[in-house]
Formats: sequence, C-alpha cells, structure tokens
Amino acid sequence: MNVLIVHAHHEPKSFNGAMTARATKELEAAGHTVVVSDLYAMGFNPVSDRRNFTTVANGDYLKQQREEQHAHDNGGFAPDISAEMDKLDACDLLIFQYPLWWFGMPAILKGWVDRVLAMGRMYGGGKWFDSGALSGKRGMVAMTTGGPEPMYVAPEGYEGLNPPLSSIMAPVHHGVFWFTGMRVLEPYIAWAPAHLDDEQRAATLDGYAAHLHEQLEREGAPPPVAAEYPPPIFVRKQ
Amino acid sequence: MNVLIVHAHHEPKSFNGAMTARATKELEAAGHTVVVSDLYAMGFNPVSDRRNFTTVANGDYLKQQREEQHAHDNGGFAPDISAEMDKLDACDLLIFQYPLWWFGMPAILKGWVDRVLAMGRMYGGGKWFDSGALSGKRGMVAMTTGGPEPMYVAPEGYEGLNPPLSSIMAPVHHGVFWFTGMRVLEPYIAWAPAHLDDEQRAATLDGYAAHLHEQLEREGAPPPVAAEYPPPIFVRKQ
Repeated sequence: MNVLIVHAHHEPKSFNGAMTARATKELEAAGHTVVVSDLYAMGFNPVSDRRNFTTVANGDYLKQQREEQHAHDNGGFAPDISAEMDKLDACDLLIFQYPLWWFGMPAILKGWVDRVLAMGRMYGGGKWFDSGALSGKRGMVAMTTGGPEPMYVAPEGYEGLNPPLSSIMAPVHHGVFWFTGMRVLEPYIAWAPAHLDDEQRAATLDGYAAHLHEQLEREGAPPPVAAEYPPPIFVRKQ
Repeated sequence: MNVLIVHAHHEPKSFNGAMTARATKELEAAGHTVVVSDLYAMGFNPVSDRRNFTTVANGDYLKQQREEQHAHDNGGFAPDISAEMDKLDACDLLIFQYPLWWFGMPAILKGWVDRVLAMGRMYGGGKWFDSGALSGKRGMVAMTTGGPEPMYVAPEGYEGLNPPLSSIMAPVHHGVFWFTGMRVLEPYIAWAPAHLDDEQRAATLDGYAAHLHEQLEREGAPPPVAAEYPPPIFVRKQ
C-alpha cells in the first residue's frame, strides 16, 4: 500500500513531527510505502491564483475553476501542483497531519486542498462522492489540539462553548475526503500534547500507532451515493 | 462606525469584488468609514511561522502561541501582522468577504486568521467568548458559493449530500467571531453567482445592500458566557 502523509507543522521537533515520524516507521515496518509532503519544509505556496497554471484560458478574468479545467485538458498545471497530484493519484491512503488552528486546517494545508484538488482532475463532470475521482482511496486525519478533550467532545458541561467536533471535522471528512470519493477512516486526535509529560506523550504516540494498525484493517465510511440525490439545479433567482 | 472588510478573491471583476465595492459604497454613503484589506492585492502571506515576529522567545523550538505571547509582550509582531491588528482594533464591524472553497475560507483568508489573531493580543489569559479581546465588535460573513442554495441548505432532498451549512459556518461564526468575543451578524450568501445573468446579479447585489443596512441595526448573536462553563482542565492522560 502507498501512503501519502501531508504534514503541516513548522517545527520538526513538535508532537505533529513525532506523529508523522511514528506513522512512517510503523507503516514502513508493515511493508507499506510512505511519501511525506512536508509542506513547511517544502516551502509550499498555499495561495491559489494564476501561478497554479502554465496555461491561460482567459487572461482578462480569472475564474479559478475554468482555469483548472483548462489546465487539466491541456497539461497546464504548475510543477508544484502537478507533483502533489501525482503523489495523491499514487496513494491508497491519504493522511492529513496538522495542529488544529482556529478549528480548522492551518492555511498552508488548506491551500494544498485549494490548489491540488483542481476541477477536471479531482472533481467535476459527475466526478464526486461515490463517483469521485479519488474513489478507492481512504482518507484519515491525524491532528493535535491546544485544548483538552472535554472542550471539543463536550461531555462534561462544555456543550456549546466550542463548536462541536462534528462541525470541526465536517469540512475535511465530508467536504474534502467524501466529496472527492474517498472513504473516511476514524481520526486520531492527540489532545493538548503541550500539556502532557514525556511518558504521556510516548503513550499517546503508542496510541496513534495502534490506531493506525487498527484503521488499516477497516474499509472506512463510504461517501454519499450521488445518484440518490436530485441532480444539482442552478436555481434562477428573481 | 469603522468597518474592516477582509477581502479574499484574486479577480477584481469577480462577484466578490462587486460585493465589496457595493458594501463600501453603501457604508460610506451612510457616513461610515470603510477599510478594505484586499489580501490578494496586498500579496498577503498566509503562512504562519517565524516571519510573524521580529522577536524570538525560543530559537530552538517554534511553539507558535509562545512566540505570539512573547511578541505581544515585547512589541515583536512583524509589520504586516501589526498593520492588520491595528485595523482590527480600530473596527466596529468586521466583514469577511470570500468565495466558499472546499466548504471553508480560501487559504489566504485562513492565514489572515491564523497569523493576525495572535495569542496574548487577541485571545488567551481569560480573554475569550464574552470576555474576548474583540468584545463590542460585530462580525459578518459575506460569501459566494459554486453550487446553488438547495445543495447547502438541503430542504429538497439534498440532506446529507454536502456538509450542513451549520458545519460550514461554525468555524468562522463560532470559532473565530465568538471565540474572540465578537457578536455575529447574519451572513449574506450569494448562491452560485456564476450561474446568474446580469439582471439577477444586480438583484443579488441589491439584496446584499439591503441585508447590510438591516444587519447594521442588529446587535448580533452574543458569544457563549465563559463563566457558565467549568474552567478548562487539561486532563492528564495515562
């Protein structure tokens, strides 16, 4: 199996760094191939604009999806995007490794999504959900938080303080993985590693390793079946 | 009243551009002062790292929040961040104007949030929710979508296809505006403007103007009251 870890943390000695190192070690020991896109180390540019393309469909008006479709049809993706697309195509399992910043992905990872998941190649023309371009692949989130677990899962009187975990995960689980056709594995969330001692951190990494091995045996949650829904109708407003 | 519009679209002739232009015109005509942070035009860097700071708390280990607190205590924010912080401090109403990309903010706007809303200055030390650093301000989303309204609000058999609108809005309404103490005004969502004709687009812009004037009279939805919740406890894991 080929695994792509898209890693979004600027400190190699961070707990995120330790998680990616551990995942790489565990997966390689199990005979899998691991590719890591270390976005900060690569100096990945997360800003989606004309630099995504070597081709131009309309030089007077930048409509991102039109340029994406045109680039797809004419081999016009910039080398940095094309390289990530190839890694994504080659993988069986995609792992997003990131610290939860403002209840979402750090901008450098959001920009990887914005730029790499281009219309034409990764979705569009009926390619979405169960008919998605990335069908057959699985996606998994591995993330760290600043706050402790009860602040996110809200079982102990914290209901309503933070956004619910389902809302935090929906944009990536549903909006990215499912939308492009991937099955979704259970996330591994390392709660507030900055507040753990060394022994607790080691146990949390062991927990991640066990989680990975367990999830690799799972099919993952399948995306919605698009045919069960009415086709998208672009309702004309008055 | 001072209004800050953080604008995140790369095409000035886009519908997002038209919305910001219309908001500016309406607000100025009503006697308000409008500042626009046009992130693409500014070449805003959305990647949060040591370039956020002119100071260094720990050169061997980059912990973002520690460096933010240190920069706050020592006047060490980089000029591009400091300028945005000053605009934010000066505003009474913050508007995020963006196209919905992958069910969230474009990376360039997410990076504005990641970098400008720094610990110490914008949250932390008991400053959050109703005691937030931005208490007294109001926040509002103005956005465009690629798909038509039923795909997001799901009243017509689309339930479960896309992530629910509540999940799409939660990271910004709850996670950014409420977290920092702002009251939240109703968003204005221009559904699929690329599929509208000129007359419909003009009507949608008129709708935005009417929405703005109406919302300006509202207090907005208040953030959770932090004192009603147990204090955050960093639960030690085994």
